[in-house]
Amino acid sequence: MQLERNTPWLLTPGPLTTSTATKTAMLSDWGSRDEEFITFNKRIQSRLIDCVGANDSHVCVLMQGSGTFAVEATLGTLIRPGDKALVLINGAYGHRIKKILDILGRQSVVLSTPEDVPAQISELAATLEGDPSISHVIAVHCETTTGILNPIEEISQVTAHHGCKLLIDAMSSFGALPLSAKDIIFDAVIASSNKCLEGVPGIGFTIVRKTTLIESKGNSPSLCLDLYDQWQAMEFNGQWRFTPPTHVIAAFDAALEQLILEGGQPARLKRYANNCRILVEGMTALGFETLLPEHLQAPIIITFKMPSDQNFDFEQFYALLKNKNYVIYPGKLTTAPTFRMGCIGQLSAEQMHGALTAVRQTLIEMNIKNGRPMAA
Amino acid sequence: MQLERNTPWLLTPGPLTTSTATKTAMLSDWGSRDEEFITFNKRIQSRLIDCVGANDSHVCVLMQGSGTFAVEATLGTLIRPGDKALVLINGAYGHRIKKILDILGRQSVVLSTPEDVPAQISELAATLEGDPSISHVIAVHCETTTGILNPIEEISQVTAHHGCKLLIDAMSSFGALPLSAKDIIFDAVIASSNKCLEGVPGIGFTIVRKTTLIESKGNSPSLCLDLYDQWQAMEFNGQWRFTPPTHVIAAFDAALEQLILEGGQPARLKRYANNCRILVEGMTALGFETLLPEHLQAPIIITFKMPSDQNFDFEQFYALLKNKNYVIYPGKLTTAPTFRMGCIGQLSAEQMHGALTAVRQTLIEMNIKNGRPMAA
Repeated sequence: MQLERNTPWLLTPGPLTTSTATKTAMLSDWGSRDEEFITFNKRIQSRLIDCVGANDSHVCVLMQGSGTFAVEATLGTLIRPGDKALVLINGAYGHRIKKILDILGRQSVVLSTPEDVPAQISELAATLEGDPSISHVIAVHCETTTGILNPIEEISQVTAHHGCKLLIDAMSSFGALPLSAKDIIFDAVIASSNKCLEGVPGIGFTIVRKTTLIESKGNSPSLCLDLYDQWQAMEFNGQWRFTPPTHVIAAFDAALEQLILEGGQPARLKRYANNCRILVEGMTALGFETLLPEHLQAPIIITFKMPSDQNFDFEQFYALLKNKNYVIYPGKLTTAPTFRMGCIGQLSAEQMHGALTAVRQTLIEMNIKNGRPMAA
Repeated sequence: MQLERNTPWLLTPGPLTTSTATKTAMLSDWGSRDEEFITFNKRIQSRLIDCVGANDSHVCVLMQGSGTFAVEATLGTLIRPGDKALVLINGAYGHRIKKILDILGRQSVVLSTPEDVPAQISELAATLEGDPSISHVIAVHCETTTGILNPIEEISQVTAHHGCKLLIDAMSSFGALPLSAKDIIFDAVIASSNKCLEGVPGIGFTIVRKTTLIESKGNSPSLCLDLYDQWQAMEFNGQWRFTPPTHVIAAFDAALEQLILEGGQPARLKRYANNCRILVEGMTALGFETLLPEHLQAPIIITFKMPSDQNFDFEQFYALLKNKNYVIYPGKLTTAPTFRMGCIGQLSAEQMHGALTAVRQTLIEMNIKNGRPMAA
């Protein structure tokens, strides 16, 4: 049964390629207040908490919208007007967190590193030491801007040592990179349906410490983005406060089932790591260079430096790759001249080799000898 | 090709039954920043503006989440701290608007009528006359609580006469009931993908007067729910600020195509009005009584009084109807003891007759002579 049009493979940071089983889960309609639909939500919440091993301490709150909606809901609900947050920034998503805090009128300071440098633990310790009024640390696990991995376990240790609460934006790592409440002390982990969990977009969620959430009643400056209220309403009768994206949730439920069948986070990491290795090795053989050294590169999205060949035009490169059925990220978020290729989603070695063949062919068509960037 | 499981027919106020064409539009994955996907958004925006004939004066802003997310975004962006809104209330959705304004710290007063009485024009005029500081009037077109229709054209005339801006919650009427910028002066009309437009849930939208939106820059107390920012970003490059629910949007695009093929709003109204007539006549023949007189009843959702027969148990009634493949709204929002049945979505006379047969059979199974309510 050929259900799909000739969908291109998405080598992007998300939305990404999902399985046929995930998409076909959307072929029914559900009453959002019906028991059958309510069981989806309960199963999703419980599986997401299982992912981080936080069953005893945390609850899962689902939120309509994109991941950023869940981020804003979490910040606005958990951080009070009298609190002060320290935001660790090395990319666009760290900056976005700072922007949300500013708009919400929540006090914050930042600790920035360049986009190719992970958060520095000694600086974090010194900052917390120097300012005891800091109540929260907010970190991005894998900064999707470059694909850089921040040292979340060490961040957690220092944060806990200073008695601060840690909120983690794990948007592009959740489900693939290890993140366990057994190793990492956190008050909130925020992610979405459409990254490494391989659902379709439309749902964000927060795994939040129950005691912290209870203390946060009445904090939110928003009705829709009130994480406490959203949790309480669903606790009460299993229903969403406001119409949920029923089909997106059915797809998410199917995607989480497939995560378990694949072997959970370790198996998914293995597949993505293999994808990443094939892609980086293949691109390197074509002359391209990664922005990040290997030990900082999460196997999620890879940032390549722009080739120096005068025939290289990114718009054309993108379009020629798309003609060959591979869609890469059509812009850049980094300061450095780069482009990005994702290796997450329902993709494996076959698609990585296919993408490399497409890149090789595209370079020939563009009359480019190799992907070597300008010397730094 | 049998794509769907045995999906029950949804006789609810939404999410509701959608067509197979709408659901199968979700069987592909799209890069959200790809040109092909961007064309969906442009076409959706332009078709929604066409629905209300406001091409010259208004723009369409799409918002992730449920309809309430679009309501909160609209209120928070268009109403300033110094403004004062008058909310016309005769049901749960009017109350929700008031609640949002309170949470956002926006000044408001209310004009309430009982849930079976439409907004009173003379009272509206007197209130606006008596309080020149009122800057905005907010009305619910069809209050989904009961299905009552508010006199939106007269509300618009009085509001405009007093120099106030009118914001309309048209959640459950948009696409089915007439609502044209040629007859009704409004600054914003808010609705969602999953009611009379017969898309799947996950997107809300606002048709907003362009000059008003431009004046509203910087008003929003939220990043995600900033209607101005959401509009500006998409104007700039056609892309969403934050990950859109790509599959929901593809389905919405397909649903709007089908609305046009059906003959637009007049044809949809005709189908729904026929559904409503069959349902009300059939239920009346079984002894049930509607809460509203016919002239106040919009052909969207019908509220029936609870039967007085001592064998009537609503939970059982709901479950037995669901066994027969008809899902009705499993609760009540009204003050009066009632239940609701929707007549919108991809349903026609066949499903209405089917639902009536199911109700008739259910009454027999429950040993209920007829659906007659207690005398008032």
